[in-house]
Amino acid sequence: MENFSYLNPVKIIFGRQTIAKLTNEIPSGAKVLVTYGGGSIKKNGVYEQVKASLTGFDWLEFGGIEPNPRYETCMKAVELIRKEKVTFLLAVGGGSVADGTKLIAAAVNFEGNPWDIIARHAPVASALPIGVVLTLPATGTEMNGNSVITRAATQEKLSFSSPLVYPKFSILDPETTYSLPPRQVSNGVVDAFVHVAEQYINPPASAPLQDYYAESILKVLIEEGPKALSAPNDYSVRANVMWAATMALNGLIGCGVPQDWSTHDIGHELTALHGLDHGQTLAVVMPGVWRTLRAQKFEKLLQMGKRVFGITNGAPEARVEAAIDATENFFRSLGTKTRLSEYGLDASIIEPVAQRFAVRGHAFITADMVREALRQRV
Amino acid sequence: MENFSYLNPVKIIFGRQTIAKLTNEIPSGAKVLVTYGGGSIKKNGVYEQVKASLTGFDWLEFGGIEPNPRYETCMKAVELIRKEKVTFLLAVGGGSVADGTKLIAAAVNFEGNPWDIIARHAPVASALPIGVVLTLPATGTEMNGNSVITRAATQEKLSFSSPLVYPKFSILDPETTYSLPPRQVSNGVVDAFVHVAEQYINPPASAPLQDYYAESILKVLIEEGPKALSAPNDYSVRANVMWAATMALNGLIGCGVPQDWSTHDIGHELTALHGLDHGQTLAVVMPGVWRTLRAQKFEKLLQMGKRVFGITNGAPEARVEAAIDATENFFRSLGTKTRLSEYGLDASIIEPVAQRFAVRGHAFITADMVREALRQRV
Repeated sequence: MENFSYLNPVKIIFGRQTIAKLTNEIPSGAKVLVTYGGGSIKKNGVYEQVKASLTGFDWLEFGGIEPNPRYETCMKAVELIRKEKVTFLLAVGGGSVADGTKLIAAAVNFEGNPWDIIARHAPVASALPIGVVLTLPATGTEMNGNSVITRAATQEKLSFSSPLVYPKFSILDPETTYSLPPRQVSNGVVDAFVHVAEQYINPPASAPLQDYYAESILKVLIEEGPKALSAPNDYSVRANVMWAATMALNGLIGCGVPQDWSTHDIGHELTALHGLDHGQTLAVVMPGVWRTLRAQKFEKLLQMGKRVFGITNGAPEARVEAAIDATENFFRSLGTKTRLSEYGLDASIIEPVAQRFAVRGHAFITADMVREALRQRV
Repeated sequence: MENFSYLNPVKIIFGRQTIAKLTNEIPSGAKVLVTYGGGSIKKNGVYEQVKASLTGFDWLEFGGIEPNPRYETCMKAVELIRKEKVTFLLAVGGGSVADGTKLIAAAVNFEGNPWDIIARHAPVASALPIGVVLTLPATGTEMNGNSVITRAATQEKLSFSSPLVYPKFSILDPETTYSLPPRQVSNGVVDAFVHVAEQYINPPASAPLQDYYAESILKVLIEEGPKALSAPNDYSVRANVMWAATMALNGLIGCGVPQDWSTHDIGHELTALHGLDHGQTLAVVMPGVWRTLRAQKFEKLLQMGKRVFGITNGAPEARVEAAIDATENFFRSLGTKTRLSEYGLDASIIEPVAQRFAVRGHAFITADMVREALRQRV
């Protein structure tokens, strides 16, 4: 096991009818900005619950944070916050709303160009406190200090992290996920699966507990994910998927083990350049990354095959192939397409993606490896 | 899954040569009291590492905190702190030192009789900040807000919890555990195992991730625990046992599921009245509690038998028996005795223990159940 530090200060409030609890979590006297996305919270009752819980607070709202939240949109919220002297941000929605709100929180008092927080990882010196009401299990942002932001002008999708943007609290009421469109449910399960994989399918590190934990989350996603589509109003299923997605990226399973976020980073380019959903890009890219980096991922693919998918017959090489196929088939069973061509893209899209890796550089994957990984995925 | 809240603010610093990092974790200008136990830290190099890391701090020390830390001893530390105007406590040692230090931290500014914190669960309004350098994986106190204290005068061993006594940081260097006596290693593994069991061997709660996580910890303890005895200087083994013990009682696997701490509470009486080590009491008591409460524990015992011990043949009743036996045999394989008679105790000790449950009452187990559980364990 490698040395590590771990600190996760997020208070999770999980369960039925828990939105009402936010009254006690926001500092009294705070001026609150409620941030949200395209307005689904106004159709599914969440907005009304939040509104009721904010009785007595001075609050205003900022809607319209997009899926793949845009820097440009976030900067409009920053202006509003400065004008209205907001002191607390309450993000209500999925990962995009929370991620956008994290940037907003970090940008309000940032000296200089806030884009540097993302593009140059400029240190964040202060941030407004954030609370989250999560309505879509997927990104894990509700229990970490990460944020992924898109700049429309330059078609860039990049991430930043800061201990200052961990939510003070995140409220997870699985009932709020009953009304999610199936595509978002599938994307969320794929996203959580790949979060685990990026921290798990790597060279062995003598860390059996982290391995078992990773496999635990994968098994729950495989067992419960499809039920979230077939039985959307089953509380237990929704609760288990939601908790699994949170645990997939709260830092715990990554303690003391190597990580490789290549699939995410390639996927971000496909979203930025071609508009695929985040989950869709991951389902396309990961099998290609695994086969391209097969040597370093071999042992763990074998282990996952056995422990997660029950693949125990055949030569190791065949079992590794079967494990990759089983993963892709799981994604397809959720209704998620896994080939570029299924999204109307052909091999001509590969070079511009690879070029971005050539220019920017990457800790784990070269431009040539990106080419090789994507060529397999047309 | 039941509703739950979860917040764990402890910063874990894990790995080789990490004691040096405490320099950056203690507030500059703090006046530090280093608390420790019987002096093993002065033999194994830990004291020297702590001393070196405290260069530049104004600090003093308080040794002699016993295994099963005594209220009376803790109160002496409180006097010293008041006199010397200490502002930060650094607990260096195992769970007893940390638990005692938690009480010390809570008692310093407590108005009234500090024993009420334990005996009456009087609310703690403030506590001195605590850091921990852990040298014995076992109790999980390094990542929770719990403390167990013994009052010698009345032979009572009781616990309290407060969000204010979570350590600010805990440093876990597995190398500091190389020199532990085998009995303490075994006790620690048993303790961690039973922490998991008290949160896991309970009526099913549709919480598969919590179940898989609990089983993950048990498997690591079973696989790595014996190696900690046979290969005491194997870093990976020590690291995995240490991390598993921390994860066993940091609250996570107990989220949203029923818990039953009967084995611990009966065990505490055996320590308080007869001086058995904590781990020893758990190994004696748990099989009796499981058989006494067999109906409510049946399904999970069956599941643990299958998933942890590989018991898949036979009728369910026989498999449950086999799972209980496998657990007891695991404890015995570590050199831990599991019968009262092996500690020189006979059936005459049962009634005074049961009487304490009759007088005090208990959420999960009656005095009659205590009698039944212990009668099986003579």
